[in-house]
Amino acid sequence: MNLEKPYIISIYAILRNEKGEFLLLRRSQNSHSNPGKWDLPGGKLNHRELLEEAVAREVWEETGISINPGNIAGYVTFELPDKKIIAIVYDGGYVIADIKLSNEHMEYSWISLDTILEMNTLPPYFRDFFKRFVIENKKFSKPSI
Amino acid sequence: MNLEKPYIISIYAILRNEKGEFLLLRRSQNSHSNPGKWDLPGGKLNHRELLEEAVAREVWEETGISINPGNIAGYVTFELPDKKIIAIVYDGGYVIADIKLSNEHMEYSWISLDTILEMNTLPPYFRDFFKRFVIENKKFSKPSI
Repeated sequence: MNLEKPYIISIYAILRNEKGEFLLLRRSQNSHSNPGKWDLPGGKLNHRELLEEAVAREVWEETGISINPGNIAGYVTFELPDKKIIAIVYDGGYVIADIKLSNEHMEYSWISLDTILEMNTLPPYFRDFFKRFVIENKKFSKPSI
Repeated sequence: MNLEKPYIISIYAILRNEKGEFLLLRRSQNSHSNPGKWDLPGGKLNHRELLEEAVAREVWEETGISINPGNIAGYVTFELPDKKIIAIVYDGGYVIADIKLSNEHMEYSWISLDTILEMNTLPPYFRDFFKRFVIENKKFSKPSI
C-alpha cells in the first residue's frame, strides 16, 4: 500500500494531582511540530513495544514520573505535515511527584479541566479529547460546591 | 477513573485478492454483537500483546491465513452496549489462500471497494473506514479502464 502520509501510533497519558488538576507540558520552541504549544506527556510507540510500556516510558522520559498505566481514557487522531497520528490516551492516575522535564518541553503546569477546555494554546485535538472525557465521566464527576 | 463503558483496543486487517477485492466475513447468527452482519477479520487486543501479533493471531484464527502485517491502513471507533472500541486497521496485503472460517463467522466473500461502500449489511463504522481509505489512497489507485 502506498500511503502518501503514513499512519503512526502514539500514546499519551493524563496525570492528575491531589486537586484533580491535569499535568500539561509546554513544547520547546525548537520542537519539530507545535513549538510553544501545550501538550500531554506521551509520544510515538516504538517497533515491537507494548502500548502500556510505551506510555510508561514516555511519561518517565518527559516528566521523571513512574506510572502504572491504568484504563484507557480515550483517543486522539490528528495530522502532522508528514504523518497521521492515531493516539491512545491512558489514565496515568493521581500522582504526587516532582516533575523533571526533558529538553522536549520547556514548562509544565497543573491545570483544571475548566481552564483546559478554553485553552487556545492547547491543540484542538487535545481539547476535543478533554471535551469527550468530560462527557464520558460526567456521571462520576464530583459536584462543584 | 470510573468509566461507565470502558475503552477496549481492537485490531482488524484488510486483505486483498489478486483482483484487488477485499475479504469480508459474515458474523454468525449467534454472535453477541452484530449477528449476521459483515465484518473485517480481527478482534480484541489481549493483555500484554503486541498490536502486530494480535492482528496476525486474529486473522489466523478467523481465516486460517498467515499474514505479516504491514502498514496501518486506518482506524475505526465505535460503541457496543458494554464497551467503546478503538480499533487499528492493518494492511494485511494481497493473499492467495483458502479461507477456513472459525465458528465466529458463517460466510466469507471477496468484495470490490465500490460494492463495499454501498453495503448496508456492513456496519457504518467499517463503511466510514473504507470511505477514508479511498480518499487517502486515491492518488495511487489504478485507473479504471
